[in-house]
Amino acid sequence: MNIITGIGLLAGMLTTIAFLPQAIKTWKTKSTRDVSLGMFVIFCTGVFLWIVYGTLIKDLPIILTNVATLVLASTILWFKLKYH
Amino acid sequence: MNIITGIGLLAGMLTTIAFLPQAIKTWKTKSTRDVSLGMFVIFCTGVFLWIVYGTLIKDLPIILTNVATLVLASTILWFKLKYH
Repeated sequence: MNIITGIGLLAGMLTTIAFLPQAIKTWKTKSTRDVSLGMFVIFCTGVFLWIVYGTLIKDLPIILTNVATLVLASTILWFKLKYH
Repeated sequence: MNIITGIGLLAGMLTTIAFLPQAIKTWKTKSTRDVSLGMFVIFCTGVFLWIVYGTLIKDLPIILTNVATLVLASTILWFKLKYH
């Protein structure tokens, strides 16, 4: 694996696990007043379309990265709807 | 442009503009208590690496999408640091 691929994988990993601290914070505090519902509805829709796109072009990294992101982002969306 | 490319472009657009509602909400309320600092530090780092990756492989859509995302996400990060 060359350095460029490594940078791409690291970028994908960071933009996926970035949602973990927000999911944990929201789970702990049960408080989502400052979190934007619009952001997570639009973001989850976009990530879902990335999965459709990755499936159509048979690109496993795009599929796997976005499935992981969708799990985390939709968890935060669920908390937002539950604790709004 | 075929339907598959269209889906990819729409996915990229949605996962970029998704940050706009959060930036507007935070700008209006000046309240970021429920927003995770960790999320936006990690996310901005990842998006910056996507820009480095896109530059190295000379992929304009990756560069442009992530520059727009970085502008929005770092605005929210700035608000979080300012109003924490």
